[in-house]
Amino acid sequence: VAHQVGIVGASGYGGAELVRLLGAHPGLDLTVIAAHTQAGEPVRRLFPNIVGDVVFDPIDLDRLAGLDLVFIATPHAPALELAPQLVEAGTRVVDLSAGFRLAPAAFATWYGEEHPRPDLAPEPASARAAQGDGAPAPGARGSVSRAVYGLTEFARQTVAGARLVANPGCYPTATLLALVPLAPLVVPGSIVVDAKSGTSGAGRGLREDLHHPHAHGDVTAYGAPTHRHTGEIETWLSALGGEPLGAVSFTPHLVPTVRGLLATCYADLRGGVTEHDIASAYADAYASEAFVHVREMGSFPHTKALSGSNGCQLAFVTDPRTGRVVVSSAIDNLGKGAAGQALQNANLMLGLEEPTGLSAVGVYP
Amino acid sequence: VAHQVGIVGASGYGGAELVRLLGAHPGLDLTVIAAHTQAGEPVRRLFPNIVGDVVFDPIDLDRLAGLDLVFIATPHAPALELAPQLVEAGTRVVDLSAGFRLAPAAFATWYGEEHPRPDLAPEPASARAAQGDGAPAPGARGSVSRAVYGLTEFARQTVAGARLVANPGCYPTATLLALVPLAPLVVPGSIVVDAKSGTSGAGRGLREDLHHPHAHGDVTAYGAPTHRHTGEIETWLSALGGEPLGAVSFTPHLVPTVRGLLATCYADLRGGVTEHDIASAYADAYASEAFVHVREMGSFPHTKALSGSNGCQLAFVTDPRTGRVVVSSAIDNLGKGAAGQALQNANLMLGLEEPTGLSAVGVYP
Amino acid sequence: VAHQVGIVGASGYGGAELVRLLGAHPGLDLTVIAAHTQAGEPVRRLFPNIVGDVVFDPIDLDRLAGLDLVFIATPHAPALELAPQLVEAGTRVVDLSAGFRLAPAAFATWYGEEHPRPDLAPEPASARAAQGDGAPAPGARGSVSRAVYGLTEFARQTVAGARLVANPGCYPTATLLALVPLAPLVVPGSIVVDAKSGTSGAGRGLREDLHHPHAHGDVTAYGAPTHRHTGEIETWLSALGGEPLGAVSFTPHLVPTVRGLLATCYADLRGGVTEHDIASAYADAYASEAFVHVREMGSFPHTKALSGSNGCQLAFVTDPRTGRVVVSSAIDNLGKGAAGQALQNANLMLGLEEPTGLSAVGVYP
Amino acid sequence: VAHQVGIVGASGYGGAELVRLLGAHPGLDLTVIAAHTQAGEPVRRLFPNIVGDVVFDPIDLDRLAGLDLVFIATPHAPALELAPQLVEAGTRVVDLSAGFRLAPAAFATWYGEEHPRPDLAPEPASARAAQGDGAPAPGARGSVSRAVYGLTEFARQTVAGARLVANPGCYPTATLLALVPLAPLVVPGSIVVDAKSGTSGAGRGLREDLHHPHAHGDVTAYGAPTHRHTGEIETWLSALGGEPLGAVSFTPHLVPTVRGLLATCYADLRGGVTEHDIASAYADAYASEAFVHVREMGSFPHTKALSGSNGCQLAFVTDPRTGRVVVSSAIDNLGKGAAGQALQNANLMLGLEEPTGLSAVGVYP
Repeated sequence: VAHQVGIVGASGYGGAELVRLLGAHPGLDLTVIAAHTQAGEPVRRLFPNIVGDVVFDPIDLDRLAGLDLVFIATPHAPALELAPQLVEAGTRVVDLSAGFRLAPAAFATWYGEEHPRPDLAPEPASARAAQGDGAPAPGARGSVSRAVYGLTEFARQTVAGARLVANPGCYPTATLLALVPLAPLVVPGSIVVDAKSGTSGAGRGLREDLHHPHAHGDVTAYGAPTHRHTGEIETWLSALGGEPLGAVSFTPHLVPTVRGLLATCYADLRGGVTEHDIASAYADAYASEAFVHVREMGSFPHTKALSGSNGCQLAFVTDPRTGRVVVSSAIDNLGKGAAGQALQNANLMLGLEEPTGLSAVGVYP
Repeated sequence: VAHQVGIVGASGYGGAELVRLLGAHPGLDLTVIAAHTQAGEPVRRLFPNIVGDVVFDPIDLDRLAGLDLVFIATPHAPALELAPQLVEAGTRVVDLSAGFRLAPAAFATWYGEEHPRPDLAPEPASARAAQGDGAPAPGARGSVSRAVYGLTEFARQTVAGARLVANPGCYPTATLLALVPLAPLVVPGSIVVDAKSGTSGAGRGLREDLHHPHAHGDVTAYGAPTHRHTGEIETWLSALGGEPLGAVSFTPHLVPTVRGLLATCYADLRGGVTEHDIASAYADAYASEAFVHVREMGSFPHTKALSGSNGCQLAFVTDPRTGRVVVSSAIDNLGKGAAGQALQNANLMLGLEEPTGLSAVGVYP
Repeated sequence: VAHQVGIVGASGYGGAELVRLLGAHPGLDLTVIAAHTQAGEPVRRLFPNIVGDVVFDPIDLDRLAGLDLVFIATPHAPALELAPQLVEAGTRVVDLSAGFRLAPAAFATWYGEEHPRPDLAPEPASARAAQGDGAPAPGARGSVSRAVYGLTEFARQTVAGARLVANPGCYPTATLLALVPLAPLVVPGSIVVDAKSGTSGAGRGLREDLHHPHAHGDVTAYGAPTHRHTGEIETWLSALGGEPLGAVSFTPHLVPTVRGLLATCYADLRGGVTEHDIASAYADAYASEAFVHVREMGSFPHTKALSGSNGCQLAFVTDPRTGRVVVSSAIDNLGKGAAGQALQNANLMLGLEEPTGLSAVGVYP
Repeated sequence: VAHQVGIVGASGYGGAELVRLLGAHPGLDLTVIAAHTQAGEPVRRLFPNIVGDVVFDPIDLDRLAGLDLVFIATPHAPALELAPQLVEAGTRVVDLSAGFRLAPAAFATWYGEEHPRPDLAPEPASARAAQGDGAPAPGARGSVSRAVYGLTEFARQTVAGARLVANPGCYPTATLLALVPLAPLVVPGSIVVDAKSGTSGAGRGLREDLHHPHAHGDVTAYGAPTHRHTGEIETWLSALGGEPLGAVSFTPHLVPTVRGLLATCYADLRGGVTEHDIASAYADAYASEAFVHVREMGSFPHTKALSGSNGCQLAFVTDPRTGRVVVSSAIDNLGKGAAGQALQNANLMLGLEEPTGLSAVGVYP
């Protein structure tokens, strides 16, 4: 029989993409589609791709607690409240918000508030070890596990045993998939990440800069150097890469498309590192992965190739003149960057085949 | 065991969409991906969403003839040659080209050439009867059936028994789904169809007007009043509608998106026809359809809601001031307008559940 | 010395386009840039193309009344109040709103409210006569003239003498330029206008359907059959065309670009009308016009060619099968459809050369 | 009387933008619009914004040599032949190609061919000195001057006296305007330039990756680390900045718009450099410039604000965590990045006011 799952925050883009994906999933039964302010409204009013008469459910803790797994796709504030309640009630949670992605100190730095549940916040320092040796998730000795940072390809084992998975942010996902395998090969402090995202990354809330007449045909940087994903990238690049790589320059840009995120990453190579070393590092990391594809050297990926999918494509070049490696990594920000990866993690948590209901093949052209 | 299928003309957009859909289809095994000039080339070179090392196959008649069903996604000239050979070899064919959509006389008028196989061309006049009473497809008494025009919702029974299905064009699909149910309610000769298509409808061939700097931000009409789909619309609107509706004004436009086709259709209402009559006609036609959804009156459909799907959404209004009905009908031109409907037909021809491997839910936003 | 002009409602797109055009105008001095809610804010905050420290002025009637001409680019409600005050103070006004485009009865029908100043509303029935014989504008005998409907090419003489010009709407401008010359050649009641507009036509106000993730890649009809421009089209097509042409089916669409409006117009031809008659009618109307260009038959115009300009391009075909003429007419909705035509009218009202500060050449590609 | 000017290579986008700009220029008379393969064709066939019957002229050296100034907008190979002939005939030349932007050795490195006229190639090492002290252009002592690299704001004096101006490339223009003022403040070898360009930058030639269905909605890196503009950036950053700044990592990207180029530049700050130092450097460089505007710190520029203009907008932030400065610089690649700057240079060369016929205000929205 299918597992019963629900979504809280289904009126946002991440939630709506989960509605779409779960509607075609053979092993999960989507029984709650909850949204705070939209409760009672037909889903199709916000998302015209969803036909029929389904309406948004209210957020009913008892009902959610009876499910096998809940996807939380709200902002981080309500997630910080809701996730612990569900976990403590025995329900598995994949949290797409930023609530449980950072250790408490880093959370305070980047989000400007104390973490209300430091006991559930992840422990980046031990993440690699936990994954590497198949040990139980950090904190599993207590009654409730700490959150696991769910960059699936680098946390498969801990995700499988987790009660609470912090689903990575869109920029961190593309960036970490590009850089984690190179961690031992690059110079700490030398990393620059220049990222470009379609407008869906900014969410469904109306904003002047997302008004179509303004965003169409426009390219602009924003948020640097203090975008909150900077802290997430730094934390997990060092933690999953197993090397202290220091501060990262991260500049996100808005580009005039809807889905698609490209992170172009620059780093100084350590002495003696060759193209072959880099190619080997990627092959070791991804040769048997279903969703991450390393393209031929210099054949940079196209975001559009991933549209609607859970795939990531990346390619690198080295530049002997500057001593740098340049890696460009593409995802669908709502796919591998949000709902796709959340479902990939949920599959693992529920004992299903990891790729069930997911595809690496985007809708192209 | 899965049915073995192949694609000829897989290097075009219709073919490539079939590659994508068949890759996720649980009951069909895509064993041949053939393309004339691209044979031997990796598919991913043309379609970066298809990762891996699969290459285009050459067009090998013997190999194709051994399959259960072949999708032909070439231009009509090669299809007119290939389809009869395959059908005569016992292989089912879904032909996405215009080769077998018109009776010989209409084909000569609109395509400027004699039809080489009039014995296989469809018989529009008898299409409705064949569908209505569940009789075998016209011509089925001979060893090889005539082509069946595969607007699935109006040809389900004949498609199921067909050896050769002529898959409808993109503009005719959107238009006919909007107008066939209204055929008895509108005035012959009064129909105007103003259609808007994304640029993928024009195909993969490079053209000045499809060069991104030219097509981006541009809207233009083209092809009127002699676009070839005009003849297809007229033929099948009268044939499937069961009423001689006369000539149609059809003007296609290119709009600056890739997927998505909207047909806005105008017709004078016959005396006494009410909104209720129109709503009833649509309900009769589509209430139990999986892929065609009639929206609330005046809530016009959004093409983007169908992107990547096999769905069609439509809505109408009446205008007492002019005595006209206005219907707007949206599809993905590569989905219900090409590859999606082709697969819908193939499912029927092979005895599978009609919606297998298809969705009515587009990738949105 | 330059004439002193001002803009009220400069925070909307029509107003902002006037700011841009007037900034490069050699004979007009833009001294007031007023906006109600934005007063005191730097213009560049809303419009990043306007650099420097200019701020929006408050709406100060005394200051405005001292100018030679004021452009009103507000919604119609404030325009209905402000325009009469300015006109009575002796200031010329070009009103871009819909306040003075219709006779009082039609205004009440389409806008659902009584016209507060029927004495200033235009008299469509006499518009053609006034223009044709060079007589002074209707109402000019009194101390204050009635509004003149400023479709410049058909109202040049009355505009030149007017105190209050009602600048046409964007859809009516493209449609009337296509159809007014054909008025004697087409069958009353047979006209269908299917129009497509970029999103800037909907204005600067944030809306769900104009959120970039929703509008990008989408095409949709809206507003039919009761869009307010329908009444304006009907009124002035008959008035300027000199023939009672009856009700018109008008369906606007939103297409995923920002500037650009295409009106594709269908009409039954009266008996015996030939292509030559149509070509002659257009040549008579536009052969010596600077801003309206009739393209070769069937070479339909591209909206993008007009971007940022005051030009209009149109082309027609006839269809012997249906007996219809199809005309497609392209403008920039903010150019000839709003600010450009407003400036063209202002030039005439102030005795300047009509094309001063305007161009028919769009920014392309 | 107006100066007589001509364009060679008018069928490309740079040339066509010059046609548009010169059509509205009060002091220049465009008498030759030449294009090699398009000679005899109506301009409007390629560029629908240009109405009327003007046809492309053949390339007639005698006729060109009689003009006051010729814009060469061909690829570099024909420019390398044509420019010397015109200069030696006494005609001023603004060359938009890459033919004369680099010293011979660098040209050989980046373009893979010997420079055929090393005597006319520029001398980067002396460029700053020449500009700084108002001395005549390098090489001016001979009968024919060496080419002057025409980044106008840093070469005003030498441009004014030049016979041959090498108009900068689009990427170098945006990058150099961002970085030249900071040359003394940043660490050599630390510079990363991540640039994003609309598709018009790739030219009018049809290409698979510029086919609308492929380019729409897509973002991709290309050309790194050996894009030819890399050498131009390195050469002139050191030359105009007056500091040897070493190799630069340059990665261009294609983004789904037509006009608009954004260069986001990263550099390590030298010890003790403050935000105030950076702001001062920019103020010194641009406070009195008409076309370069430095925005408030962190208020990153929007490419769309420059569309159709000759303006450049830039903004910076510093990041104490990484010790880097990040500067984002926006232009219209066909404006300040090509035709606009070419006209700015031509104005200087012909003794006209530098901004004549140009605007810093883009068409927005």
